[in-house]
Amino acid sequence: MLLLSVGPDLPWLMGYEAMPLERLTMLVVPQDDVACLVIPAFEVPRVVEHPDVFDIQGWGETDDPIARVVDKVGAAGTLAIGDHTWSRFTVALQDAMPGRTWKASGQVVGPLRANKDEAEIAALRRAAEGVDRIAAELQSGQIRLIGRTEADVSAELGARILEEGHAKVNFAIVASGENASSPHHHAGDRVIQANEVVLCDFGGTTAEPHGEPGYCSDITRCVYTGEPPTEFAEAYAVLQRSQAAATAAATVGTVLQDIDRVARSGLAEGDLDQWFLHRLGHGIGVEAHEDPYLVEGNTDLLEAGHVFSIEPGFYIADKWGARLEDIVVATDAGPVSLNKASRDLAVVEA
Amino acid sequence: MLLLSVGPDLPWLMGYEAMPLERLTMLVVPQDDVACLVIPAFEVPRVVEHPDVFDIQGWGETDDPIARVVDKVGAAGTLAIGDHTWSRFTVALQDAMPGRTWKASGQVVGPLRANKDEAEIAALRRAAEGVDRIAAELQSGQIRLIGRTEADVSAELGARILEEGHAKVNFAIVASGENASSPHHHAGDRVIQANEVVLCDFGGTTAEPHGEPGYCSDITRCVYTGEPPTEFAEAYAVLQRSQAAATAAATVGTVLQDIDRVARSGLAEGDLDQWFLHRLGHGIGVEAHEDPYLVEGNTDLLEAGHVFSIEPGFYIADKWGARLEDIVVATDAGPVSLNKASRDLAVVEA
Repeated sequence: MLLLSVGPDLPWLMGYEAMPLERLTMLVVPQDDVACLVIPAFEVPRVVEHPDVFDIQGWGETDDPIARVVDKVGAAGTLAIGDHTWSRFTVALQDAMPGRTWKASGQVVGPLRANKDEAEIAALRRAAEGVDRIAAELQSGQIRLIGRTEADVSAELGARILEEGHAKVNFAIVASGENASSPHHHAGDRVIQANEVVLCDFGGTTAEPHGEPGYCSDITRCVYTGEPPTEFAEAYAVLQRSQAAATAAATVGTVLQDIDRVARSGLAEGDLDQWFLHRLGHGIGVEAHEDPYLVEGNTDLLEAGHVFSIEPGFYIADKWGARLEDIVVATDAGPVSLNKASRDLAVVEA
Repeated sequence: MLLLSVGPDLPWLMGYEAMPLERLTMLVVPQDDVACLVIPAFEVPRVVEHPDVFDIQGWGETDDPIARVVDKVGAAGTLAIGDHTWSRFTVALQDAMPGRTWKASGQVVGPLRANKDEAEIAALRRAAEGVDRIAAELQSGQIRLIGRTEADVSAELGARILEEGHAKVNFAIVASGENASSPHHHAGDRVIQANEVVLCDFGGTTAEPHGEPGYCSDITRCVYTGEPPTEFAEAYAVLQRSQAAATAAATVGTVLQDIDRVARSGLAEGDLDQWFLHRLGHGIGVEAHEDPYLVEGNTDLLEAGHVFSIEPGFYIADKWGARLEDIVVATDAGPVSLNKASRDLAVVEA
């Protein structure tokens, strides 16, 4: 039995996204029966109905939604709860149904979501094309950098993501100078100077017709605000080759951790592997990060229809850093990068 | 022992918001010892450090963060897990620590968060002033309605919320004509016509300096795109009186459900109480909806420093609807509305 609430499983499965509020929305999915959506009564009009796929049971303001779910669950012994379900609901359900075995839905739904069909890949391509256009504006200098705060540039990237057909911004990292050595830097008040690196990592979730799930974009490009010093240019060239080699290695049937290793070997040529602080990549779909993960220790095999990031980087504390990230789809004919924006280090002048 | 991850408890307590991603961030708060923030190693630079309040323990990409938390928890028998903590982490922690008693953090932190201090009330007032200005633009016709889709107006409200100093948009409901009978209507492709009601309910979370939590705004106003029919104008007048009466009733020491009842009695004067489909209000703070809830069955008492919505409405299926919502703070000198935008039914002409 599967119990799904807020988070990406629900829109992926039935095209409805639960409101992230304290009134419980939960889809109860039995193994051999029609599913039932338990939802606040006055939110029923939000749902595009599919009576063949699920029933709808609205609960009133003074009803107990936990009791509704318990009633639907019946005697099921093993319950897989949505990965992102708020723990307040999980704890309440556990209290109401002692003695059951609880799993996380990712164990059930994760592998299913990882294999994208053609329509999903098309949506991910449209998402990638949107952020590619923004990357090109960064690289051409159309989005100004020097003299602005990171937070200001981050806000502009966010606004551009929405203009490019996304419903929401998931992140817009802008890390300048020594801040580029922090992979998940929080864009702040630092004013971008001439002659430094600016790392921009941004993406969102596409807007789709009501009842259809959105898909995510995610791209990283670096811009140098002036002629880069030789040391940086050489390091970036190593990074670029490492990213290309890892992308080329992402062929169907490859062990996932081996792709991560290819990127690390590539960085080692410039003695940069010691500064590559994170895994190589993550799957992407209705969720910004999802299966499969390209990380040491993951011995699963790459499959056709997997869509994932390839994003090596180097981060040298108090000095600088860089990352180069594309979204790639594994096909039987080989890896295909959905992002097409130039991977060269862009140079913009003051 | 308190275990906090994504969601509002963490920024409220320590000014740091966990990234809503698959890498675990968790603050472990023992009863009598310094807290410990378990966080991805490369996100440590995001944190504004307060060594007097919490230690930081970064975990590497191939480490197991669950094991880190288990180590910090030790033998504690009762664990309160953050209300919004992803259930995948809660299930993993439960598997790793069988035999403990699990609670939701709301039971511990909810009442603490409900009582706002002066700085919090000032932040909520600034948030309210921001959306008041947007409401005034709707009421003056400066934000055009007729001929646009609900989704288009919703996007403009979202953009204006960000311009008014919010870091994010929580919702921007635009419900026109018969759609106004759905309290949580999903703004869609319907084009707004002349001579109908447009219900707008919008709010976000304010941007504050890094290391400070943002606070939420939430307001509902209705605009009529032409001279309203007498039946609607009269119903709205009843609604407006009901909202005023409920606000006046929100004095310190009042039973919370009684304030809801005052609003319902007011609506009954126009025979509208049967169409009031939801509770009267919710607390608001770092979270859009939080304690205290003004709902039948809540016999807690209103306290000075409680900040909450007063939002009666009527929703007549396939016809129309209206809601009027302010954020109100309870003080020893009586209720004070933080929203000041006109509560009259605004009329805009084509």
